[in-house]
Amino acid sequence: MKIAVLGTGGGARAHAAELVELGHEVFAGTRDPEATLARTEPDMMGNVPYGQWLADHPGITLLPFGDAAGAADDLVINGIDGHNAVAALTRIADRLADKTLIDYAVPFVYRHQSEHPWPTPWGVMPKLDPCDTDSLAEQIQRALPETKVVKSFVTQEQTTVVDPRSVGGGDHTMFVAGDHTDAKQHAIDLLKSYGWRDILDLGPLVCARGMEMYAHMHSAIGFGLGQQFGGHFGIKVVR
Amino acid sequence: MKIAVLGTGGGARAHAAELVELGHEVFAGTRDPEATLARTEPDMMGNVPYGQWLADHPGITLLPFGDAAGAADDLVINGIDGHNAVAALTRIADRLADKTLIDYAVPFVYRHQSEHPWPTPWGVMPKLDPCDTDSLAEQIQRALPETKVVKSFVTQEQTTVVDPRSVGGGDHTMFVAGDHTDAKQHAIDLLKSYGWRDILDLGPLVCARGMEMYAHMHSAIGFGLGQQFGGHFGIKVVR
Repeated sequence: MKIAVLGTGGGARAHAAELVELGHEVFAGTRDPEATLARTEPDMMGNVPYGQWLADHPGITLLPFGDAAGAADDLVINGIDGHNAVAALTRIADRLADKTLIDYAVPFVYRHQSEHPWPTPWGVMPKLDPCDTDSLAEQIQRALPETKVVKSFVTQEQTTVVDPRSVGGGDHTMFVAGDHTDAKQHAIDLLKSYGWRDILDLGPLVCARGMEMYAHMHSAIGFGLGQQFGGHFGIKVVR
Repeated sequence: MKIAVLGTGGGARAHAAELVELGHEVFAGTRDPEATLARTEPDMMGNVPYGQWLADHPGITLLPFGDAAGAADDLVINGIDGHNAVAALTRIADRLADKTLIDYAVPFVYRHQSEHPWPTPWGVMPKLDPCDTDSLAEQIQRALPETKVVKSFVTQEQTTVVDPRSVGGGDHTMFVAGDHTDAKQHAIDLLKSYGWRDILDLGPLVCARGMEMYAHMHSAIGFGLGQQFGGHFGIKVVR
């Protein structure tokens, strides 16, 4: 399939690389491809410059956000930062119409663009906005009524999302939520191709609130395990 | 040990009953024992009237909040509703000084006292206050600086907290957070006596934010499993 992955951060890279491995044609989206390729410094998360990464990962076509989304058969993965996602996606709404958009962003608010996005060692996290009474996924769905938004991946590091067997042999749980059954099935099929065996459909997109708010718990568990940055673990729903 | 359990709801009852089973002397706390015992209707969660329940559970002494807390050797479990907890505990701060207070409340805001406290079937939950940038546990700790507050139990139904083996043979994870190592150890020892084998110390009390905000995810998972009211499942951290 032709699949678009919007964003050039570590999570988007993990999805793009794995999708190529699985035989898909991958279109990576960025605001300005020339600017993205011109960077020579690691990004704020310490990832190598995108151009260098792209050279090591043949089979990925870098395009502006709208062209990448337009090139997808159906599946578009949103890896745009939470605080930029609604604005960036609204600008390309026509290219996302009738498509499945899987959103895994956490709507963290950074006071400064330069602020380190990771929680401090004592567990204080950037503020979430929206939070509790709304979610980023619902905001995106309202802004793009023609698109079928699915929230998933967000409860897990993206490197583990694309390689669930790397933790506990893959014996942990992934969640999906959304208002469109067919789109959720596309997300579930993708997750199965990544190796997920336990995928729990939480129900409608309103359940994205819990998934996004879980970000604090995810970080706290990482601290508890002594994994300050990132966190290589899974969560299993034990019935 | 002499242990106090503040509150008369289903969670507080589960702890009180199990603590008696484990051989402890249990002091249940309520605002007004006479009023509590005078009730003849089930409470808003459908629990039988407290007096009837108490008659079936010998070994529990019902006292006003302050007297119950004062009777405890060290351990006090806070099962007072989240939106009443800070005010009720502040009034008995002197009886809680130097003691370990395990708080498991979720700071749900109900618009009316009569509002049904459960989430609706589509996953919308009562609002949390505080949320994200503060937690109820931190509020309690600030209000009671002489008390050693531990957040725990909150990620789980209390009937499962006191009987972890009832889900998946007990192969799931319980969390603690707090700023006082000795108090956390008391909580961990209590949890072990309940049968918990996997107890993860998340770190300082600020991690209570994630534990309280997990309430939405807990409800969503319950919905996903078709367990609309309550939820009989566990969460295991898979390393």
